[in-house]
Amino acid sequence: MQIVQQQVCFGGRQIRYQHHSNVLKCDMQFSVFLPPQAEFGSVPAVYWLSGLTCSDENFSSKAGAQRVAAELGLALIIPDTSPRGEGVADDEDGAYDLGLGAGFYVNATQAPWNKHYQMYDYVLSELPALVEAQLPLSSKRAISGHSMGGHGALVLALRNPERFVSVSAFAPISNPSDCPWGEKALGAYLGADREMWSHYDASLLLLSKGCSLPMLVDQGEADNFLAEQLKPQVLVHAAKAGHADLTLRMQPGYDHSYYFIASFIEDHLRFHAEHLS
Amino acid sequence: MQIVQQQVCFGGRQIRYQHHSNVLKCDMQFSVFLPPQAEFGSVPAVYWLSGLTCSDENFSSKAGAQRVAAELGLALIIPDTSPRGEGVADDEDGAYDLGLGAGFYVNATQAPWNKHYQMYDYVLSELPALVEAQLPLSSKRAISGHSMGGHGALVLALRNPERFVSVSAFAPISNPSDCPWGEKALGAYLGADREMWSHYDASLLLLSKGCSLPMLVDQGEADNFLAEQLKPQVLVHAAKAGHADLTLRMQPGYDHSYYFIASFIEDHLRFHAEHLS
Repeated sequence: MQIVQQQVCFGGRQIRYQHHSNVLKCDMQFSVFLPPQAEFGSVPAVYWLSGLTCSDENFSSKAGAQRVAAELGLALIIPDTSPRGEGVADDEDGAYDLGLGAGFYVNATQAPWNKHYQMYDYVLSELPALVEAQLPLSSKRAISGHSMGGHGALVLALRNPERFVSVSAFAPISNPSDCPWGEKALGAYLGADREMWSHYDASLLLLSKGCSLPMLVDQGEADNFLAEQLKPQVLVHAAKAGHADLTLRMQPGYDHSYYFIASFIEDHLRFHAEHLS
Repeated sequence: MQIVQQQVCFGGRQIRYQHHSNVLKCDMQFSVFLPPQAEFGSVPAVYWLSGLTCSDENFSSKAGAQRVAAELGLALIIPDTSPRGEGVADDEDGAYDLGLGAGFYVNATQAPWNKHYQMYDYVLSELPALVEAQLPLSSKRAISGHSMGGHGALVLALRNPERFVSVSAFAPISNPSDCPWGEKALGAYLGADREMWSHYDASLLLLSKGCSLPMLVDQGEADNFLAEQLKPQVLVHAAKAGHADLTLRMQPGYDHSYYFIASFIEDHLRFHAEHLS
């Protein structure tokens, strides 16, 4: 992996890397924040999965997470949201919610998506193996994300509780099998058989498998996507049925933007730090 | 003035306004952060002047200033960096350092710039009068900025110490009469007579007028523009000659980006709050 850009930030280092992904079969960029403590030893990592249309740069530049990560000694690992580059399939109409910038953190099984869109394996295995081999990271991991990335974080943690100590999300797509964004993306990437979708639906996974990890979810009450796309109440219902440790906080007045994320990222990082330490 | 966009952030309100500027003779947008305290009474304001190529959105989304402003009860007033719109002159070659996004906070005297480029009067008078009439602001003001905006903040404060209680800057263009950015812009906007430039040169103003206000300047040591464009040592020399209260902090490893601003904006807001309270 090669450094594309590097900047000092809150006494730590904000670094953008490029590498060739064998899983995604393309060159990828991702960002990392290494806190000052990483100069002296290994630190745990919080993975951040971004939402539709984002790259690794949105969270890096807009969330203000580095301040708290520097204080707590947490690395931040921030992947891109889809495979990239010439030859990578995109939606024919250039829709923002399918194809580039919209990988939904699944392993696609349907052509033309299945050639590159293997974001589940990339985020779960290839990227952690890469950064843990080359950066001063312990193997302690937590995971969080926003919207499509909140969906991704919940799904990755629910299916692999041994890989993470805690999971959180901002305005996650909680039940993608039953909302327009999810039905479109899962249908395209996984095909018409909804049984396949259930492996990528946090609410269905919670119902079927339960969850041993602590979960924190923040949701803005003024979020335009709340009722139609996000449906946190379905997640809460599934958590109650499975006696899972989910805290959902409804935040009055907040919308779907990074101003919402910036306002509460400190709480999420402190929540993860408690479980990572 | 009309609200273009409004978002809750750290319990306060981040608002983007549009209005017609009589001074600039065009429609302008600017951003305001109102802290939670503004719901119950008037609050003091910190004006933020952005650098080359920026609009009001860069500082709003990338600096993480709202957290501290909400804690301290400070409003943030964030103007654009030049007049905007069809009919507003721009550099013929589309250079980033002249014309749109590069108003340098001067009152231009030379055609074609003099028709719209009156950013000094806009930021000093028209904008404060507008927001103080329509928003819960006291008339206590501090001012800060970055690069071209650090130059603007220093010049506005040095020439109008009765209007501000304190001034700060990140990597300001300290001596624009003697650097490529400044010579190009001041030459275009003000003409060849360098005597006219001296009214917009913080170092020359400090030498000739001194300064009664407390001044805080942060400068990254890894800033690519440090030696050729920014020259904080000239400002320090002028401050010493005039016995002015300037603190310059050289920050090892930091560059010219918003990662640098985000890392130290808390110190600047606390500095201003001390003088605004």
